[in-house]
Amino acid sequence: MKKIAYLGFPGSYSYIAGKKYFGSEAIMLSQNSFENIFKAVSDGICSHGIVPLENSLTGSILQVYDLLQSTDVQIVGEIFLQINLCLMVKKANTKQPVCCYSHIEAIKQCKSFFRQKKNLQPLYADDTASAAKSLALDKREGASAIASKEAAKIYKLTILKKNLADNPHDYTRFAIIANKKKGKGNKVSIIFSIKHKPGSLVRTLTAYADYGFNLTKIESRPVFGKPWEYLFFVDFEIDGKEEKFLSLVKRMAKQADFVKLIGRYEKGKTYES
Amino acid sequence: MKKIAYLGFPGSYSYIAGKKYFGSEAIMLSQNSFENIFKAVSDGICSHGIVPLENSLTGSILQVYDLLQSTDVQIVGEIFLQINLCLMVKKANTKQPVCCYSHIEAIKQCKSFFRQKKNLQPLYADDTASAAKSLALDKREGASAIASKEAAKIYKLTILKKNLADNPHDYTRFAIIANKKKGKGNKVSIIFSIKHKPGSLVRTLTAYADYGFNLTKIESRPVFGKPWEYLFFVDFEIDGKEEKFLSLVKRMAKQADFVKLIGRYEKGKTYES
Repeated sequence: MKKIAYLGFPGSYSYIAGKKYFGSEAIMLSQNSFENIFKAVSDGICSHGIVPLENSLTGSILQVYDLLQSTDVQIVGEIFLQINLCLMVKKANTKQPVCCYSHIEAIKQCKSFFRQKKNLQPLYADDTASAAKSLALDKREGASAIASKEAAKIYKLTILKKNLADNPHDYTRFAIIANKKKGKGNKVSIIFSIKHKPGSLVRTLTAYADYGFNLTKIESRPVFGKPWEYLFFVDFEIDGKEEKFLSLVKRMAKQADFVKLIGRYEKGKTYES
Repeated sequence: MKKIAYLGFPGSYSYIAGKKYFGSEAIMLSQNSFENIFKAVSDGICSHGIVPLENSLTGSILQVYDLLQSTDVQIVGEIFLQINLCLMVKKANTKQPVCCYSHIEAIKQCKSFFRQKKNLQPLYADDTASAAKSLALDKREGASAIASKEAAKIYKLTILKKNLADNPHDYTRFAIIANKKKGKGNKVSIIFSIKHKPGSLVRTLTAYADYGFNLTKIESRPVFGKPWEYLFFVDFEIDGKEEKFLSLVKRMAKQADFVKLIGRYEKGKTYES
């Protein structure tokens, strides 16, 4: 049986993504930080971990990229999850909600809803799943929470409204990580740094165009404390061009100051939550 | 007298960055959202606004990029601020802190501190400045907050410890925005989208190398709901090459599906907070 390290509690979006990827039989082991997910995987306590890489509304999760750079854990798969925030109450509750547990980011993403419900007091929780859990334990009538459909099911709550967020295009891309050296698949993630000279980045990227690889992500990140040094996070699709891929890896090793392949895997699918 | 729209309360990092950029006489007008900062500027209520563009630990603030894309407000300047999180208490307080107000992100960034102080209960606030304000209003002994040095000064609090964050390289890059069409300066920010074909991004970027411009930031963002469409955020330095810059703008207009110059300004300086 596969053991999967994930962030938060049952019902968190990481939990849902893990269940979608590995199937409902997978044993999900809750962790309280990204560091502990990576540790559980590298120590062999879990066969895999699941971590968010980027969100369509809030961008890349740089802390996860830091861990991919500094550890030997690799990306072996990916999955996209549409984030559907739902308003929920306790089953017996018939009173109009007066307070609402959720994560601060989820609350921010439901601005129009809170604008309509002016007297609804937001209560901050560590994440949406623990918001649902807090609601389940709250004895007051009039308490509510914003969390996932799955969290409502787990904590026996009643959904009053789905799709609560202002922007319906809220997707998170999750990486499946494992203690593995060489992965297989049509997609590759790489981190590299180059000396900051005019044209140096473009020269490096030309290799991808020469070999006809699709770049699906590129992001630069200044290395503070080291002026003129940049890290780049790049994802690309190799579409079976194995020899060209090996040749690109060699070329990158020559052109970049630092280069690390952080994963090779099959391009992921999108699921609803 | 210049009126500057900023996020949060006096003592917020946006407030500090605004004061560093415009001088202590500038009138800072508090706003409760990025939308309202942009609105205050486009309505002419404020001459300028200050908004965070990216943070070295958490990445780009995509909501601000959305507003730069959808409004006519332009970037006219930039400033980098080192974020120094401080632990503070009320002046009369001699008791060991038992609870601590702060923003959830600030609390996350002070993990080692909270690990040492196991009995210290974090209390979530909307931002660090309102955490300091909440502490000032809290009558309990043993209350504390994590906020800026400036917030401690404004709310008459005593700093117990500086540099509380785990990672000392915590910098935020702020943009100064105004209702202006054509800016001057050696740095340019641009948003563009291109059809997702192998090599299309590299072909577009080759222009920057051809003209010898330094790329200082590049970030791709998938447009969800529109598969294969990507937006790119690019910053580059033109170093007085005026004609080459105009030529690049024309070339971009031909090669990209959509292109918008979101600002031209002088490269910013770094300050401590």
